[in-house]
Amino acid sequence: MKFEKISFSVIGGDQRQIKLCDYLISHGYRVNIFGFSNVEVNPLVKKSETLEEAIKYSNIIIGPIPCSQNDRDLFAKYYGGKVKVEDIFKVMNKHQIFMAGRLTDKIQKNLTEYGITYIDLLEREDMAVRNAIPTAEGAIQYAMENSDITLHGSKCMVLGFGRCGKVLAHMLKGIGADLSVEARSLQDLAYIESYGYKPVPLGELTSYIDQYDFIFNTIPSLILDSKRLIKMKEDCLIIELASKPGGVDLETANKLGIKVIDGQSLPGKVAARTAAKIIFDTILNAYSDLGVIL
Amino acid sequence: MKFEKISFSVIGGDQRQIKLCDYLISHGYRVNIFGFSNVEVNPLVKKSETLEEAIKYSNIIIGPIPCSQNDRDLFAKYYGGKVKVEDIFKVMNKHQIFMAGRLTDKIQKNLTEYGITYIDLLEREDMAVRNAIPTAEGAIQYAMENSDITLHGSKCMVLGFGRCGKVLAHMLKGIGADLSVEARSLQDLAYIESYGYKPVPLGELTSYIDQYDFIFNTIPSLILDSKRLIKMKEDCLIIELASKPGGVDLETANKLGIKVIDGQSLPGKVAARTAAKIIFDTILNAYSDLGVIL
Amino acid sequence: MKFEKISFSVIGGDQRQIKLCDYLISHGYRVNIFGFSNVEVNPLVKKSETLEEAIKYSNIIIGPIPCSQNDRDLFAKYYGGKVKVEDIFKVMNKHQIFMAGRLTDKIQKNLTEYGITYIDLLEREDMAVRNAIPTAEGAIQYAMENSDITLHGSKCMVLGFGRCGKVLAHMLKGIGADLSVEARSLQDLAYIESYGYKPVPLGELTSYIDQYDFIFNTIPSLILDSKRLIKMKEDCLIIELASKPGGVDLETANKLGIKVIDGQSLPGKVAARTAAKIIFDTILNAYSDLGVIL
Amino acid sequence: MKFEKISFSVIGGDQRQIKLCDYLISHGYRVNIFGFSNVEVNPLVKKSETLEEAIKYSNIIIGPIPCSQNDRDLFAKYYGGKVKVEDIFKVMNKHQIFMAGRLTDKIQKNLTEYGITYIDLLEREDMAVRNAIPTAEGAIQYAMENSDITLHGSKCMVLGFGRCGKVLAHMLKGIGADLSVEARSLQDLAYIESYGYKPVPLGELTSYIDQYDFIFNTIPSLILDSKRLIKMKEDCLIIELASKPGGVDLETANKLGIKVIDGQSLPGKVAARTAAKIIFDTILNAYSDLGVIL
Repeated sequence: MKFEKISFSVIGGDQRQIKLCDYLISHGYRVNIFGFSNVEVNPLVKKSETLEEAIKYSNIIIGPIPCSQNDRDLFAKYYGGKVKVEDIFKVMNKHQIFMAGRLTDKIQKNLTEYGITYIDLLEREDMAVRNAIPTAEGAIQYAMENSDITLHGSKCMVLGFGRCGKVLAHMLKGIGADLSVEARSLQDLAYIESYGYKPVPLGELTSYIDQYDFIFNTIPSLILDSKRLIKMKEDCLIIELASKPGGVDLETANKLGIKVIDGQSLPGKVAARTAAKIIFDTILNAYSDLGVIL
Repeated sequence: MKFEKISFSVIGGDQRQIKLCDYLISHGYRVNIFGFSNVEVNPLVKKSETLEEAIKYSNIIIGPIPCSQNDRDLFAKYYGGKVKVEDIFKVMNKHQIFMAGRLTDKIQKNLTEYGITYIDLLEREDMAVRNAIPTAEGAIQYAMENSDITLHGSKCMVLGFGRCGKVLAHMLKGIGADLSVEARSLQDLAYIESYGYKPVPLGELTSYIDQYDFIFNTIPSLILDSKRLIKMKEDCLIIELASKPGGVDLETANKLGIKVIDGQSLPGKVAARTAAKIIFDTILNAYSDLGVIL
Repeated sequence: MKFEKISFSVIGGDQRQIKLCDYLISHGYRVNIFGFSNVEVNPLVKKSETLEEAIKYSNIIIGPIPCSQNDRDLFAKYYGGKVKVEDIFKVMNKHQIFMAGRLTDKIQKNLTEYGITYIDLLEREDMAVRNAIPTAEGAIQYAMENSDITLHGSKCMVLGFGRCGKVLAHMLKGIGADLSVEARSLQDLAYIESYGYKPVPLGELTSYIDQYDFIFNTIPSLILDSKRLIKMKEDCLIIELASKPGGVDLETANKLGIKVIDGQSLPGKVAARTAAKIIFDTILNAYSDLGVIL
Repeated sequence: MKFEKISFSVIGGDQRQIKLCDYLISHGYRVNIFGFSNVEVNPLVKKSETLEEAIKYSNIIIGPIPCSQNDRDLFAKYYGGKVKVEDIFKVMNKHQIFMAGRLTDKIQKNLTEYGITYIDLLEREDMAVRNAIPTAEGAIQYAMENSDITLHGSKCMVLGFGRCGKVLAHMLKGIGADLSVEARSLQDLAYIESYGYKPVPLGELTSYIDQYDFIFNTIPSLILDSKRLIKMKEDCLIIELASKPGGVDLETANKLGIKVIDGQSLPGKVAARTAAKIIFDTILNAYSDLGVIL
C-alpha cells in the first residue's frame, strides 16, 4: 500500500515517533516534526520552529501515544518546553486528519469542537492485536530478567485469553513452558485446550494457584486478591500486563514478599522500532479505511 | 462434574450415540435406548421395546445429530423402522429436557407447542469449538489419503479463520506445512501473522491462488469460483469443510479436473469416540447451565 | 545444483521411479527407461526395447528401492517379465554409475566383480533423514485411519529417538498429542525433555505402558514383548515402523486383540511423489559427492 | 533416584553451588561447605573452618564449574582468601569422589597422582544437553535486551546445529522468529528442514548473510570473518555462544559498528537455580553410573 503525494507531521511522543519518522522517510513520504528538541532524528525530516509551520502543509498529523497524560499537555518526552494539545487543533484545517493514541472523552470533545477528523490508533483492532506481539515478548523478557529459573519447564499461568493472553500463551508454549491459561467462558476454555494449554476455569483458579512459578496477568480487575496471593509460592513472579489499576493487590503482595513486575506500555520500552512499524502500518490502514483519495 | 440420580434416554443416531452410551454408563448414569435394533450396544444400557417405555423414567432425552434430515423422521442409522420426531415429544413430560443437534425452526416450533425445554447442542459454543478438533484432524487425514505428497513442506491454504480455521491452521503448522490463511478483517490478519502463518487478505487471494498444493475451505459462500479455480494448480487438492452448499463451484472444478473432497460431518466419521466424548461433556455442561438441581 | 549433459536410465521400480522420471524430465535431463511395460509414464522419456539400449548412452543407471527382494530378480512392479539384476551389470561400462536401494552383500559383491561404481541410496544419511518425513506422516495417517479417537489430546508413545522417532515426535506434538518418547541414553532423554515431550527411560517403560492410546515403534528389536503387551490398554493401537522383524510380539498381540498396523515402506505408499523428490535430490547429491565432472 | 547415607562437600564456586546446596539439603543429604565466606547460604549446611574438616566425612566432593581459571587456584567467587585446587586433593581419601567442571589435563594429571576418582561434569552428555536449555534461553534474553525490534517476525540465523543450536532453534521458532540454521552436513541440513527451519549450507552462508537481524553463533571457529561481517546489516546483533575465542572477528565487527554480545557461561548468569538443578541431577546420574553402592 503506497499513497502518493500525502505528507505527515509528527508532533511530540517518544522513541516510537522518532523511529516512525524513519519508516515514513524510507517509504518516500515527506515529514515535518515538532517537539523533538533534545534528541537526534532522521536528517531527512524537516524540523519546524513553530507548530503552525510544522502542520501547515501536511495531510496527516500524528500525535503521541498516549496523546496526553493530563488531558491538557501533549506527551513529548524529548521537548524542553510544553505544548498544549489544543494548540495543535487551533492550527489544523478541515482537510487534515489527526491520529494519536488514547484520545479521552475530553480530547475527543475538543476535536469535535474544531471539526477535525480524528482516529484513536489504540482503538484500532489491527493495532491492538499487533501490539500484543511486542507486549508478549516484553513480558517474556521481564520474566527472564527477574527470575533465576528458566521459563522452559517452569509452571506458567496466563490470566485471561484476550489479545495479549492469546499471543503470550502461544510464545510461552513455544519456548517450552508448562502452560496453564485461565478463562471464564467455556468457549475460550475449549480453544485453550485445542491449542494444547491446560485450561483453568476461573472457579478453579484458587485451588491451582499454589503451583505456578510465573503468573502473567492480562485481566484489568482484582483477580490476584489477598486470598489467592496468600496461597501462592513465595518465589512466584507476577508480571502485570493489565492496564491500571491492574489485577493484583499490590499491598498484600508486598507484605508477602511476592515480586510484581510492572509490564505497562511494553512495546515502546522493549521494542520501539517494532512498535513504530506497527504504528506506521496502522496509520496507512486507517487512512485507507477513511477512503480518502487525494 | 457429576450429577447424582439423573438418568438418560438415547433415541436414535449413529456411532456417536452408541459410544455416548459407553461414556454415560462408565460414569455411573442409567441409560435407556430406543432406535438401535441392528447394532451392538453397551450391555449395561436398557433396550426398550417402545418409545414411551424408553423415555418414561429419564431426566434427559438425547436425540441424534442432526435430529432429522427432513424435519419429520428421526435420524436413526441403526433402526429398521421409522420414528417420527414428534412421537418423542408426545411421550415426554414437562420436567424432561430434550437435547439434540440441528433443531430447525420447524422442530423448535413443535417443541414449543409441547412445552418442552430443549437445547440444540450444535448451537453451544463449547461444543462447536471442541468439534473443530476432530474436524481439523479429519481434514488432515483426508488430505493425506488423497494426495501423493506430504503435507509437511507443501503449500497449504486455509480459507477462513473461524473456529475450524483456527484449529486446523494450528495443526497444519504443527505438522510442518508451509501455511497461508485467508481472512477478511485486519484483526484476523493480525492474529494470523502473530501465529506465524502467512496472512492473505481476501482481496489478494486471486493473485496467490496458483501456489497452493492443498486448499481447505471453511467459508460457506462461493469463494472458490470459476475465476479462481481456473488459476489453480491442476493437482491442487481441495478439502471442503464448510456446510452445504460450501464454497466451491463444483461444476467448474469437475471440468478442470480439480479434486474436491467432501469433508462434511467429519467428527462422526473419523473419530466417533472423540465426538461422543464431546457430546457427553456438552450435555453435562448444558445441563449445568440450566441450573437444574434435582 | 544442475549438472549439464548427464543422462539417466531408470530400470524397474514402482510409482516412485515413475514420478522420479517426471522430476528428471522437468529439470531438463534425458531419461531412458526399461521395465515399465504396463503403466503410463511421462511421454518425454524414451522407452527402450532392451536393457542394453536403455542403458547404453546414460551416465547414471537408477535401479529400484529395494533393488531386489531375492538378490536375483530386479524389483519391477510394472513389468510383465523378469529381469535379472546381474543383466544390468553385464551391459554397463566402467564410466557409468549404478544407484539403487538396499544393495545386499551379494549384490555388492557382484557389482565389484563387474568393476562398477555404485551407491546404495538407502545408506545415505541425507536420504534417510528426509525419508523420515513421509514415514512419520504416513504413520500419522495410518493411526488416524485405524482409530475412532483423535491423536489430538490422546496419549501417544514413540519408542526410539532415531531419525524417524525425532521427526515423528515433532509432528505428533505439533498436532496436539500428549506425547511421551522412550529412549535409552541420558543424552537422548535430555533432548526429549528439551523438546517438551515426556522422557521415558527404557527401564521405566513397563510401568507406564498401560497409559497409551497409540504406540509408534521405531526400534528393530523385541521391545513390545508379551510382558509389556499384557499390561497395555486393549484398544491401544500399535504402528510398527521398525524394519522386519520389528519390535512387537505379533502372536501375543494377536491373542490379546491388540491391533498392530504394518508401517513398512511408508514413503512409497503414502507419498510417492514426495518420495520421488527425495530420491531425485539424493541422486544429485550423491553424484556431486562423487566429484564426477564429465 | 535417592541414595541413602551419602554426604557431600561443596568447595567453592558461585551462585550455582549455593543453590545446589538448597537442592541437596531439600533432598535430605548432609552437606559441608568451604569457600563461601561472604555470602548467605542455606542454614542447614555445615560451614567448616578448614578444608580438611569440610571434606573429611563426605562421600562426594563437589568443586566449582570451572574448577579453576588458571589451573592452580580454585574458582571461589564468594571467598576472601585463596584456595589451591591441589589442597583439596591432599586431604581427600581414596574412597571419595571428586566432581567439578572443566578439569584440564593438568588438573586431571594431578588427580591421577593422588589416586582420586573424578568426574568432569561438563564432559557428561546429559549435563551438556540440559545446559543447552538455560544457554538458549539466556541467548534469547540477551537478544531481546540488546535490540529495539522483536524476535517475533525478525530474521534470525543460528550458526551450528549441535546441542545448543538444536535447542536454541527450537525456542526461536517457538517464539515466532523467521529462522534459518547453518550446518555443514547434508544430514543436519535434512533435520533442519524437517523441523521447519530454513537450511543454509555453509557454502551458501555468505550470499544470505546480509538478511539477518540476529545471528546466534555456536561454532568455535572463525565463521564470522571480515568478509562476512562486511556484508551484514549494520544493525544486525550477534550473540556469541561458542567457547573462547568464539567465531567472530571482534576487531572487524568493532570497526564496522556491529554489536557482539558475549554469551559465555549463560546458565549460571541468567538462571542459576535451573543451572544448579541440572548440576544436582548430573551429580546423582554420574554417581549412579559409577555403580558405587555404599
